[in-house]
Amino acid sequence: MSGERVWTAALVVIGDEILSGRTQDKNVSQVAVWLNQHGIRLAEVRIVPDDIERIAAAVNELRVVHDYLFTTGGIGPTHDDITVDAMAHAFGVPVVIHPEARGILENYYRDRPGGLTEARLRMARVPEGAELLPNPSSGAPGVKMDNVYIMAGVPGITASMLEGLTGKLEGGKPIVSVTVGARAPESDVADMLRETEEANPGVAIGSYPFFREGRYGSNFVIRSEDGELARRTGEELSSKLREAGYDPVDGGI
Amino acid sequence: MSGERVWTAALVVIGDEILSGRTQDKNVSQVAVWLNQHGIRLAEVRIVPDDIERIAAAVNELRVVHDYLFTTGGIGPTHDDITVDAMAHAFGVPVVIHPEARGILENYYRDRPGGLTEARLRMARVPEGAELLPNPSSGAPGVKMDNVYIMAGVPGITASMLEGLTGKLEGGKPIVSVTVGARAPESDVADMLRETEEANPGVAIGSYPFFREGRYGSNFVIRSEDGELARRTGEELSSKLREAGYDPVDGGI
Repeated sequence: MSGERVWTAALVVIGDEILSGRTQDKNVSQVAVWLNQHGIRLAEVRIVPDDIERIAAAVNELRVVHDYLFTTGGIGPTHDDITVDAMAHAFGVPVVIHPEARGILENYYRDRPGGLTEARLRMARVPEGAELLPNPSSGAPGVKMDNVYIMAGVPGITASMLEGLTGKLEGGKPIVSVTVGARAPESDVADMLRETEEANPGVAIGSYPFFREGRYGSNFVIRSEDGELARRTGEELSSKLREAGYDPVDGGI
Repeated sequence: MSGERVWTAALVVIGDEILSGRTQDKNVSQVAVWLNQHGIRLAEVRIVPDDIERIAAAVNELRVVHDYLFTTGGIGPTHDDITVDAMAHAFGVPVVIHPEARGILENYYRDRPGGLTEARLRMARVPEGAELLPNPSSGAPGVKMDNVYIMAGVPGITASMLEGLTGKLEGGKPIVSVTVGARAPESDVADMLRETEEANPGVAIGSYPFFREGRYGSNFVIRSEDGELARRTGEELSSKLREAGYDPVDGGI
């Protein structure tokens, strides 16, 4: 909008456990929120299985069309952790042991039974040419390869890697969201929503219906890079809803 | 495995609200579990924004490489519900009002204020040539176009559409999962996992670490189309864990 550069990112979620339905993904939403704080839009997500070819294909398709690509999952010490191998395959480089990562792990496991075993050393493997992403919460660092940020899949560790990256990525303006809720079935106010969106170029209005405690309702989310415009449009929609006999709730229901 | 045909599906989750992080997706896991009950593997998920071109591109890439394609989201009555338009665009056909869907909506809204308004009638729009998917929980039906199943985004309504489809899709053998949990850091048992997987061709073992109440642990998930093999491998892993001094927990921690 207003001709400014829009920064975008994609996310590849890696893991059979998500695709089997065993594990509920929690990284899409936390990565999305974190990116928006940096003025970067999450433009697409792909969830792919633990398969080197499939991971590499998704990575190579997405890294060239977005400013940033994030991945979550598959960087642990076990045989099913193949993200680094897939990334090396995608970039056409060998896998090497990163000396700094090796040092971090040697330190981390010094006083633990077994020390730095071969399995644990797997977590120092990176595609040749990669840098490390600090991981304050456990020994194993994430990996940065070109514009690709390779993070852990366990949501708490992902969060900690994101925290380590906070403020370090270039972006544009964050999208500001204003939510107005009402006990209005969305089909009753469809025209009102469309008209309000059309009357305010630069905003997008989303309508999210729900059915709770035996009643229909909706949350209307006004999004814009222009925070003032989003707030003004939210107020406009609120008064239209009030006029129509619905009791709008700022911040949503 | 054993040369049998593997049935696969992909899922396209449509919605700015998921990509903005505002809404936590719950459809990936419920669609995945439902598909597995039908012997169909969820092989890939894409989350795309409310954008006709982006939706159509994902649909056209995925519907030709999988037996089935499911979509969730964007089939309501408001201006941001554009899935049907995107689908018509993908298939190169016009959007038409489906007479049976119109009848269902007329009936559903007969006694409600306003009756079948133009906004509500939007929910009878389908790509030309489509069939309806029954929706026991609200008026608006889902849509089936070729091998593409177009469902609602509100998880309760998605569930109800899936229920309406239960038993109606052809598939192969479901994957059987056996979970064994232990208070073992996964790096301590990485070799054991790899050896157990290698000794039992036809199983895949996933390792999912966690950190709870100040202690590390992992769940090990053994997956196979051969339920007996999965159970036997689970017992084998359990006794190895016991021998190594870890207390295995059947069913996971």
